[in-house]
Formats: sequence, structure tokens, C-alpha cells
Amino acid sequence: KTPIKLLVLPGDGVGPEIMQEANRVLAWLEKNRGVTFDLTYDLVGGASLAEYGVPIRDEVIEKAWASDAVLFGSVGDPKWTHVGFDKRPEIAILKLRQELGLFANLRPAKVFDALVDASTLRPEVVRGLDIMIVRETVGGIYFGEPRGIETLADGSRRGINTEVYTTGEIERVARVAFDLARKRSNRVCSVEKCNVMESGLLWKEVVTDVHGREFKDVELSHMLADNCAMQLVRNPRQFDVLVTGNLFGDLLSDLASMLTGSLGMLPSATLGAVQDNGKRPALYEPIHGSAPDIAGQGVANPIAQILSLAMLLRYSLDMQAEADLIEQAVANVLASGLRTADIMSEGMARVGTAVMGEAIVREL
Amino acid sequence: KTPIKLLVLPGDGVGPEIMQEANRVLAWLEKNRGVTFDLTYDLVGGASLAEYGVPIRDEVIEKAWASDAVLFGSVGDPKWTHVGFDKRPEIAILKLRQELGLFANLRPAKVFDALVDASTLRPEVVRGLDIMIVRETVGGIYFGEPRGIETLADGSRRGINTEVYTTGEIERVARVAFDLARKRSNRVCSVEKCNVMESGLLWKEVVTDVHGREFKDVELSHMLADNCAMQLVRNPRQFDVLVTGNLFGDLLSDLASMLTGSLGMLPSATLGAVQDNGKRPALYEPIHGSAPDIAGQGVANPIAQILSLAMLLRYSLDMQAEADLIEQAVANVLASGLRTADIMSEGMARVGTAVMGEAIVREL
Ligand SMILES: CC(C)[C@H](C(=O)O)[C@@H](O)C(=O)O
Ligand SMILES: CC(C)[C@H](C(=O)O)[C@@H](O)C(=O)O
Repeated sequence: KTPIKLLVLPGDGVGPEIMQEANRVLAWLEKNRGVTFDLTYDLVGGASLAEYGVPIRDEVIEKAWASDAVLFGSVGDPKWTHVGFDKRPEIAILKLRQELGLFANLRPAKVFDALVDASTLRPEVVRGLDIMIVRETVGGIYFGEPRGIETLADGSRRGINTEVYTTGEIERVARVAFDLARKRSNRVCSVEKCNVMESGLLWKEVVTDVHGREFKDVELSHMLADNCAMQLVRNPRQFDVLVTGNLFGDLLSDLASMLTGSLGMLPSATLGAVQDNGKRPALYEPIHGSAPDIAGQGVANPIAQILSLAMLLRYSLDMQAEADLIEQAVANVLASGLRTADIMSEGMARVGTAVMGEAIVREL
Repeated sequence: KTPIKLLVLPGDGVGPEIMQEANRVLAWLEKNRGVTFDLTYDLVGGASLAEYGVPIRDEVIEKAWASDAVLFGSVGDPKWTHVGFDKRPEIAILKLRQELGLFANLRPAKVFDALVDASTLRPEVVRGLDIMIVRETVGGIYFGEPRGIETLADGSRRGINTEVYTTGEIERVARVAFDLARKRSNRVCSVEKCNVMESGLLWKEVVTDVHGREFKDVELSHMLADNCAMQLVRNPRQFDVLVTGNLFGDLLSDLASMLTGSLGMLPSATLGAVQDNGKRPALYEPIHGSAPDIAGQGVANPIAQILSLAMLLRYSLDMQAEADLIEQAVANVLASGLRTADIMSEGMARVGTAVMGEAIVREL
């Protein structure tokens, strides 16, 4: 069988150490499931800035195009916070999204039964929570022009950014959301600020059109972004799939993640458009950041990284059985009482990064 | 003594009925505290659309200029959701903000001890919560140009909005936040997305400058908006005063309100610039909406409206003692066990709008 080509980008902070645990799972898959991986490693973020003076090289983008998928760790390093807008480690992820056209960020916010007490919300509000947020990631105010800071005649300054969405950009991300809903509880809630922003008004209209033309069987509702922020706190289980723009998605998906109380558990996928050769660029990464405060200590939770690999198997390689196996192994290990520091609670057994990774592989 | 001129705009939905209870408090103040009020009433929102075909008349803006302060109910009426972008009831509030230059929206998110169980968050996370969010309200993406929806050559469409902030706009709202912090716990956290948006980068720089020049005694921190959404869920009591732009403030202040679990309790103030004649335009309103589903039934909670009046006394009339009295009366009535439907819990006495209003006046 032809090997599966993966580009592995561990990045900064805890990225490299949690990626090692994902590697154990890759090795297990090779040994037990008759697949072979062709892994290419490279630097991004602060690690790339230190070595090459840029957060990501064009070469890395090319390697990503040449791969079946990208497995990403995390970027962000306090060392680089003061070096200016074009040398932020975050540019690595923004550029990967934009250059590969990764327009649909899928972020599940799921509460594991064993971890329901990790949430700051009451257990009865979040038990069984299972939301999928679909966030548009190559449009909106993140990339819109004009942008910048200009100095006015009187010496004062003006900062400008532009929110832009086109029919096509909205349609394709809406389709991803409706498709996902069909495999879940068949409900999509589209989120914008149409009472204030014309771009939100267009968003709402286009989502409604796509629904009417192609997805009448899915239940569609609309919600204003401020109300959505409230409803996620009031009664998050009312949602199945949420679809929204880049900026609202940034806040709302982080908010939804935090409802679970265990960020170290949550993976994400960012998907591009299917290409003429049938390939679809895709990147998988934990939703948590690089956590520089605990980096290198061997205490970081590797589960989000391992579940990101499970998403990769599911969405890029159509290896549903293997993805299920990994997710089940994680649930079992949690049920057995193992906990990394971030999800530790009374009566459980506290373990480090490597022990958690090994336990998951053993469970497999 | 010259009477205090108030423009009273009850608006839609529950607005008129909760305003009646604020009126009882006004009457009590006249009788017992040696003040007289000169009250002017007018229509806004759906009520004005029905009568005049516009959400707010220029005449009402002029009356607002001629008043010492505006006491506002709420706008929004499902009857008007399909009439188009320029006939939304919400335009009333947007226009009042813009025409009166009401740039600083003060939104306290406070948990009353008696209502700690109304929150969906664990009591130990929100007990004693007392945040003040200062949101910029006449700039940013709400009013920036260019804006609109354009049709492209191929028939597809493009929605555009513009986020703009100038040095002056950021400075004045930052000053409001720092001033407030000095009367509270002396800490300001400024929120933007400077890792993605240049307008956020300018925001951060200008807030830092104002702090360095005028408010070195106040503790200043900075936070990205997505992280702030998380932190409000993870540990909201870490915050004292938050200052942020119009759009982030819209989401984050609604999120913060919902942490308390009792929106019917929360007032807000929106302040303009001090004018040459020494007057400062200001508007006071509950943070909850018009709640059309329960309007006219006499069950709405009048407390947010009454506490908005208390804020009016505090910020526009410098009647601190009276504001304290009202806030204490509300706390006492809650402690005595009276509850409107929205904050009802076991063992408490359920009452309607009028009984709650009367009880507060009796307590005064
Ligand atoms: C790192 C940053 C640029 C990024 C974003 O804002 O999109 C992150 O917060 C995310 O959500 O993936
Ligand atoms: C009614 C609406 C235009 C308004 C806003 O978005 O500012 C409201 O949500 C608010 O927060 O006061």
C-alpha cells in the first residue's frame, strides 16, 4: 500500500512533547492496522522564527500541499510578543489556513462523562454536551482589505480592518455545517450580527438560500452573536452544529470549549476545498495553545493532540474504525482514573504526558 | 430647586410596564428627598415605527439633548423583523448612542448573594462576582464606512463592514475605564485581538499610553478577546474593570451578564462627553431586551429598570446617597424572599411586576 504522507508540525511550547504521544499512536496504527505513514517534520511558529527568522517558510506550505494532511501542535511563544505584527508565531497558522484555503474549522465541544466535574458550569447544565462549531477561517475581518494603522494630519492615528464575506465563501462553509449536521442531530444554528452588520445580513441570507436549495431536511435556526454568547452559558445543550464567521467563531468556539472545563481534551480540524486531484487539504490541531508555562516539564495533557489525530483519520483518511478505536481508548483510560494535572480531581491517579500516552496505546 | 429634566422612553415589549415601577421610585424621591422631576415621555423602537413609520424621530433626539438624562426601557418587536435594515427598532438605540455621542457603555455584571443559585455556573465560581464592563459604543464596526452589500459582475454578492478606531476614540473610553477602576478595585483589563487586527493593535497601544501618562496608579493588563471569553467562564472573578471595543463588548458583556443568571437584575449606563455647558448626555437602560413573549402580562422583573434609575442618580445627578438607598432596598427585598418569575426558586414568594415595584418603594 502507498504510504500516507503526513506533515508533522509540532511548533512551540508543549507542542513537541504532546506530538510524541501522537507518534506512539501512529506507530501503533502502522503495526496493527496495516497502514504505513510517511512522516515529514518541520518547524513553525517561534521555533521557525528562531531558526529561520520567519514564522513559517514557503517550503513548509509546499510540503503541506504535498501531504495527505497536516498534524499540527501549537504555536505561540512569549519571547516573540514584542517583535512586531509580521513576526508573530501565530502567522504560521494564519498563513497555513490562507495558503491552503482551509476555510472550515471544525471544533467539537464535548464533555466526557468522567470529566463533567472539570467544568465551572453545573453538571446538570453540561452533562452530555456535544456541540460542533463550524467556523469560517479564511475570510472575514482576519484577511479583509483595507487594513492597517495610518497617521492622520493632526498626528493622531487610525486603525482599520475590513470584514468582507462573499456569497461563495458563505455557501461553502454553510455546506460543511449542513453536511455535518446530517451525521449528528440534524440541526444547524447560524450566527451573525445582522441587526448591525450588512456582512451579517448577507451571511444570514446566503445560509438561508443554501438551506432552501440543498438541505431542507436539516433544521436551520439563526441567532445573533451576542445572544449566542449568552445561550452558550445559559443552556449550551440546545445546540447541535453552529456555523459562523471567522471572528465570532474565534470567540464563540473558545467560549464553548471552556464550558467543558478541559481544553486539554479538545481537538480540531480545519478543512479546505476538494482539489481536482481529489485531495482535500486539511490541518488537525489541539484547540489549546502552546502553554509555555508548563512546556518541557512532561506534564502537558496529550489527549487533544491524540484526538486531533483521530479526527485526521476520520476526515482525511476515512478510517472511521480507527478513529472510533482511539476515541474509545481515550474514554476508557479516563474511566480508569488516569489524569494529567490539568484535569486532575480527587481520588484519581495523576500522571505525566508520557504515561498518559502509553496508557492510551496500551488500551488500543 | 430647578426640576431635573428626564426624557423617559419606555419603548417596546415589557418596557412600558417595568418603566411604571421606576416611576414609583421617582415619585418616592420627589416626596421624600426634596427633588422634583420634569418628565417628558416619548415613543421609540417598534412603538415609534407603528405611530410614525421611523424607529426614532429627530425630535426625540432633540428632547434628549434638552434633558439631564434619558431613562430608556427596551426596544425590539418581532413584528418589525422583516421590514428591512433601516426600519429595525434597534436603530432607536444605535441612533441615540451616535447622535448624543454616548461612547461609554457601563455594564456591571454583579451576582446578588440571594441569587447565586440562579447562575448556571457553580456557586463557588460566581459568588460575589462584581465586574464592570466598559464598552465603546459609537465607533468600531457598528458605524465604520464603507459598509453595505454589493453585487459583483458574476451576480454573486459581497457584504462589507469596516472596523475603525482613532486615537481619540480609544483614549476617551480608556479614561472612563481607568476612572471607574479607581473607585473599585483599581484594575483594568483591556481586551482586543491585536494578534490579528491592526485596529486592536492600535487599541492596545493607545490604552497603554493613556495608562502611562495619566493612570499609573491603576493596574493595567491586556487580554485577547477569545481568551477573555474563556476566562469569563473559567474564573470571572479575576476581573475588575474590562474595557473593550463595540463588537467585542457586545458579546463579552452579554456573556458576563449571563454568568449572573439573572438578566432581569442588571442595569446599564451609556455616557457621552461633558459639553461646554457642563452637561453630560447619558442614557440608562436595563440590559435585558423587550421580552415580547411575556409583555403585557405583568410578570416582568422591574429591578433592572429600577437599578438603571439608581445608576442615573449616581452618574448623572451625583445623588450617591439616593442611589445607595435604592440598591440597598432591592437587596433587602430579595433577601426577604420576593421573586419575579425569571428569578424564582424553591421556597421563595413569587410576585408580579407591580408587587415587586411596590415592595421596593415600601422598603425605601
Ligand atoms: C492564533 C490565532 C491567530 C488564532 C485565531 O485567532 O484564529 C487562534 O486564536 C485560533 O482560534 O485558532
Ligand atoms: C440592539 C443592538 C443593536 C444592541 C447592540 O448590538 O449594541 C444590543 O445588543 C446592545 O448590546 O445594546
